[in-house]
Amino acid sequence: MAVSSLVSDEQAQGKVSEIFADIRKTRGTDFINNFWRAIAVDPDLLERTWNELKTVMIAPGEIDPLTKEMIYIGVSVANGCSYCVHSHTAAATAKGMTATMHGELLSVIALAGKTNQLAEGLQVPVDDVFMKE
Amino acid sequence: MAVSSLVSDEQAQGKVSEIFADIRKTRGTDFINNFWRAIAVDPDLLERTWNELKTVMIAPGEIDPLTKEMIYIGVSVANGCSYCVHSHTAAATAKGMTATMHGELLSVIALAGKTNQLAEGLQVPVDDVFMKE
Amino acid sequence: MAVSSLVSDEQAQGKVSEIFADIRKTRGTDFINNFWRAIAVDPDLLERTWNELKTVMIAPGEIDPLTKEMIYIGVSVANGCSYCVHSHTAAATAKGMTATMHGELLSVIALAGKTNQLAEGLQVPVDDVFMKE
Amino acid sequence: MAVSSLVSDEQAQGKVSEIFADIRKTRGTDFINNFWRAIAVDPDLLERTWNELKTVMIAPGEIDPLTKEMIYIGVSVANGCSYCVHSHTAAATAKGMTATMHGELLSVIALAGKTNQLAEGLQVPVDDVFMKE
Amino acid sequence: MAVSSLVSDEQAQGKVSEIFADIRKTRGTDFINNFWRAIAVDPDLLERTWNELKTVMIAPGEIDPLTKEMIYIGVSVANGCSYCVHSHTAAATAKGMTATMHGELLSVIALAGKTNQLAEGLQVPVDDVFMKE
Amino acid sequence: MAVSSLVSDEQAQGKVSEIFADIRKTRGTDFINNFWRAIAVDPDLLERTWNELKTVMIAPGEIDPLTKEMIYIGVSVANGCSYCVHSHTAAATAKGMTATMHGELLSVIALAGKTNQLAEGLQVPVDDVFMKE
Repeated sequence: MAVSSLVSDEQAQGKVSEIFADIRKTRGTDFINNFWRAIAVDPDLLERTWNELKTVMIAPGEIDPLTKEMIYIGVSVANGCSYCVHSHTAAATAKGMTATMHGELLSVIALAGKTNQLAEGLQVPVDDVFMKE
Repeated sequence: MAVSSLVSDEQAQGKVSEIFADIRKTRGTDFINNFWRAIAVDPDLLERTWNELKTVMIAPGEIDPLTKEMIYIGVSVANGCSYCVHSHTAAATAKGMTATMHGELLSVIALAGKTNQLAEGLQVPVDDVFMKE
Repeated sequence: MAVSSLVSDEQAQGKVSEIFADIRKTRGTDFINNFWRAIAVDPDLLERTWNELKTVMIAPGEIDPLTKEMIYIGVSVANGCSYCVHSHTAAATAKGMTATMHGELLSVIALAGKTNQLAEGLQVPVDDVFMKE
Repeated sequence: MAVSSLVSDEQAQGKVSEIFADIRKTRGTDFINNFWRAIAVDPDLLERTWNELKTVMIAPGEIDPLTKEMIYIGVSVANGCSYCVHSHTAAATAKGMTATMHGELLSVIALAGKTNQLAEGLQVPVDDVFMKE
Repeated sequence: MAVSSLVSDEQAQGKVSEIFADIRKTRGTDFINNFWRAIAVDPDLLERTWNELKTVMIAPGEIDPLTKEMIYIGVSVANGCSYCVHSHTAAATAKGMTATMHGELLSVIALAGKTNQLAEGLQVPVDDVFMKE
Repeated sequence: MAVSSLVSDEQAQGKVSEIFADIRKTRGTDFINNFWRAIAVDPDLLERTWNELKTVMIAPGEIDPLTKEMIYIGVSVANGCSYCVHSHTAAATAKGMTATMHGELLSVIALAGKTNQLAEGLQVPVDDVFMKE
């Protein structure tokens, strides 16, 4: 289905091979999902994207990792990215999202999708109190 | 800017007046933002939407209210709803989102937007392990 | 706000002037809205777009003109096109959309926006009976 | 393909079982499509969504049921919801959409998609006459 | 997967048959991809769309054909059109897009997707110097 | 209009001040547009985004800078990012985009937007020859 080939472990060389090793080490698993094998067609793109993901999603911050995954799912659903919905729902589940939380997450996303359309459909003017500049 | 008139307190009657009162009581403030005044052009739509928001965003659940607001922002950004980004950023701030959390939230949304495009641009096939059926 | 200038009647020449005349004649009004003045920066684009609009929206067919306007609004809301929501809500109103119909239209759009997110969020597999090939 | 399991008739209990029965009774068919089986993972979400659909799409109003389905398709196409395009095209066909109407519907959606991009690409300022507030 | 049947060569008649012949002649290949066979369900829609594509993508202009294909891919990725990403990536490759260019194209699309979300998430006000009207 | 304050030169400190200096030096102008002043609320996000932009848009590659800007515009239009359409249309013009090229660019974006909707509306199955895996 991909528009270009996925890079296998055998094909990975130089920078790609190093990033694949870092993905395995950082995540503590031998499994590398297709997303990384696909963007590996451009080693610099792979490196930039993986480094950004490590900084944004894995490094400690004020928002906990599970919350970040649920925000990620919300964005991916709204952008209609099938692959990302699959992979990040799996990631959220691995980080402790329960079935009840999944239902609540979907309910929030559904409500946001609905009210987004209503605000757009009525072209509601932004209240003054919501603006900083 | 709106495509129809906003319903003022003076114009609110019957069901609309009751919902406006419930919004004020539930939120503990006299302020009613434009979104509700806009969808009040259809009293049943107003009632359904407010009741859903109370159930999904306000009633207790496993996901805390601030996390729900941040997910809401993520969806609204991806859907390009200017009004909703404004109103829910204000709501998240009121519920305790710090400047640092706001930066982290934007970083997650930006990364998701980027990887959504990459997965879509390469049409990455979903890994078998991510599928339930 | 536009990224290029709007073409005034004084600036309109040749093909642009002819299309402006046809818009006025076809619609029976001297008013030409900004959309046509903006795309007039490329006379061929103006011509192609106006001809397609006449064929699709104005020429008789099995779907009546008001229904077409409401479908147009639905698409424009989902695509987040502020200008188009404004102009086609005005057009639908001019063609007989009542306040009640507007409320129903918004309710359908809102429900579709909500279920679109749910189907995407759960990656619901398409039922066999819905597929033709 | 789904990110969570579909709820079979055997697994349906309590509220889910009641809603499934109401879907069958309301539609006059034993068939329940995957969308409802998917969102049944959260019984309250299932109940809210089904009740909203009954109110918005099935209860009598000023817009006829077939027109509502065509608006729904327009929104779903623009939101890129593959499942919804499939299911609502089937629903519209069942309610009388002819092949000619389908072609006209697609022509309107295509034109809207095109002009949405043009208005966005040129950032056309909204004409004063189109604004209510 | 389609919601309506694809028109085979045997089923093509009249205007559809003529357009199919023109597609083959213009492209210098016997192969007609599914997109044209799908929209052929409405012969006028087929004719309008093919003529527009010939004018916009094939007729000589100031932007070269390969650049046009890459722009097309960018729009299609952002709109989440899986079919279009597949077909236009193939078209761009046929017109000389190298693997390096593909990586650069994806990098630009990914960066745009990211900054689009940031500008939307912060609701950045447009600088005066960027506005023409 | 922004949901948070823009960082002025007076407020810029440490990393933000350094990045502002690099933007000025790299672009050879004292002007810093609002986008950078807005994301400066998170200095690390500012640094990552600016560095990525320098690498992707400014560093030499196989795709020339003007083509990259036009691709950027295409993505931004489809994502509905008003700010980005304004800023990158200005950037493309500064890099040599003529009025004729602007018209052609809009024509390609409009056609893509139209065919994206058609492929989605008909759920056209991807031809085997377009798939690599």
